[in-house]
Amino acid sequence: MSEIKQTVGVVGLGSMGFGVAQSALRAGHTVHGFDINPVQVERFQTLGGSQGAMDDVAGDLDTVVIIVLNAAQTESVLFGPKGIAAKLRKGAAILSSATVAPDFARDMEKRCRDLGLFYLDAPVSGGTARAAKGELSVMSSGSPETYEALAPTLDAIASNVFRLGDSAGAGSAMKAVNQLLVGVQIAACAEAMTFGISQGIEPELMIDVISKSAGTSWALENRGPKMAVADYSPASLINIWPKDLGIVQDISRGSQFSTPLASTALQLYLTAQGMGLGLEDDSAITKVYAAQSSITLPEPKP
Amino acid sequence: MSEIKQTVGVVGLGSMGFGVAQSALRAGHTVHGFDINPVQVERFQTLGGSQGAMDDVAGDLDTVVIIVLNAAQTESVLFGPKGIAAKLRKGAAILSSATVAPDFARDMEKRCRDLGLFYLDAPVSGGTARAAKGELSVMSSGSPETYEALAPTLDAIASNVFRLGDSAGAGSAMKAVNQLLVGVQIAACAEAMTFGISQGIEPELMIDVISKSAGTSWALENRGPKMAVADYSPASLINIWPKDLGIVQDISRGSQFSTPLASTALQLYLTAQGMGLGLEDDSAITKVYAAQSSITLPEPKP
Repeated sequence: MSEIKQTVGVVGLGSMGFGVAQSALRAGHTVHGFDINPVQVERFQTLGGSQGAMDDVAGDLDTVVIIVLNAAQTESVLFGPKGIAAKLRKGAAILSSATVAPDFARDMEKRCRDLGLFYLDAPVSGGTARAAKGELSVMSSGSPETYEALAPTLDAIASNVFRLGDSAGAGSAMKAVNQLLVGVQIAACAEAMTFGISQGIEPELMIDVISKSAGTSWALENRGPKMAVADYSPASLINIWPKDLGIVQDISRGSQFSTPLASTALQLYLTAQGMGLGLEDDSAITKVYAAQSSITLPEPKP
Repeated sequence: MSEIKQTVGVVGLGSMGFGVAQSALRAGHTVHGFDINPVQVERFQTLGGSQGAMDDVAGDLDTVVIIVLNAAQTESVLFGPKGIAAKLRKGAAILSSATVAPDFARDMEKRCRDLGLFYLDAPVSGGTARAAKGELSVMSSGSPETYEALAPTLDAIASNVFRLGDSAGAGSAMKAVNQLLVGVQIAACAEAMTFGISQGIEPELMIDVISKSAGTSWALENRGPKMAVADYSPASLINIWPKDLGIVQDISRGSQFSTPLASTALQLYLTAQGMGLGLEDDSAITKVYAAQSSITLPEPKP
């Protein structure tokens, strides 16, 4: 754990961002939490977060961690009408965690550099639970100076910091590779489970068998049990996948690289969106298979 | 470990079957090994296997474990011109481990029952290393009497015996579900890794990152490192997948059930076969992606 204590701004206090902000607090940093929802900001302040509107404190920040959904929100946070980039002091460092296209990350790095700011292309993996423990995995790339400026903050929020390169883009490319696999494997888990149901195999037994066999995956161990008991409580939404597999598709088209499995999975998630399932948990991708066959999905337990 | 010692015949002394036969020996059973290759039979006898031609000893066997490649070989072992089924005593029990269609397993069970034999539909998972340790996973179904007759043998060769139902078919259906996932996930691993190479990410670093992230799977942890260093030494062949995903396709067509990811993966393995890669390790599926793009695969290390 770093001895240096920083003044950290966390932008985006959703379930991931809130955990990240708490981890930074726990490590002894001075932490300001910002969110469009004032309830989340107040909740974080009651737990030890520092007071102050973003406009007033931006000049005090050593680092800014941006935990938002996508490229549009990231750009808005940095360079929108109320953007923070113009208000930061020179030498401040930004960690951008959304899953975005590598070209977007390169553009953000350049625009930050033009203002004298450091930018780390740093998509995260690990989910809410690991965010709260300060144990995220970060797939990152940026200049050595950027890593140095962010080191105490990174220490507090992540347990694995993968360094993919010396400039923005590589971190986002690595995240796209990971998301290709997760997106395909969640859909494959649904395909396998519904296929097994069509053959009369009991869903919970099926997940138990596969999790101890060569068919297992993080996706299966994480989403399979939810599919087997029809627990669609939203943790990660269907809507994530047309975005993330869309980034994979944009990159692969730009590189004349064919990704037949990712493309097939993308069609399945688009079908799910078309069925009105966008705001359900992504384990509900089983409903696409059910709608296209005569199987009956498990009922939620009472 | 069962106290009952049986006389066991193991048919098929390939890398899996040899390990199974050794595990049965180690548990104190009397074990006869049979194979079309006399060198393997002699090798097993020097390690403690019992002597005797199959025709002479078939009547002594309590159980027969068939470890062959596919349905055609299974049928030949049992009911071909030199088939063992007609020579076994009534009440002998057969464990059939090949990945086959559920309808084939049901047919074998019926024909065995007509001869007074027990038949366990028992595809295995776990690979050569676990076969040698007596720690296979078995996805099985059959009558309670069949399980009872096979219990001491099963104890010796398997650490997980999943019971999917009271008659043949369910075990094979479960194996098809597992193979759907493994086949898709090996291809997805190749797709992700070659996609990452197209973006300039170093392959070994990529596998290291994914194995600690949500994109991980048994397939990635097992095949990814081989893909990253171009180690195509054959452990499990490309040729397995048109067979196993073909079984998935036959079942799904029979059930009017659409499996878009498995079908896409099947096309990739068929392409690999068409390229002459059938007898290479299935990690060589990366070569299909390389042939369809401008990427350069890793070179084997000297």
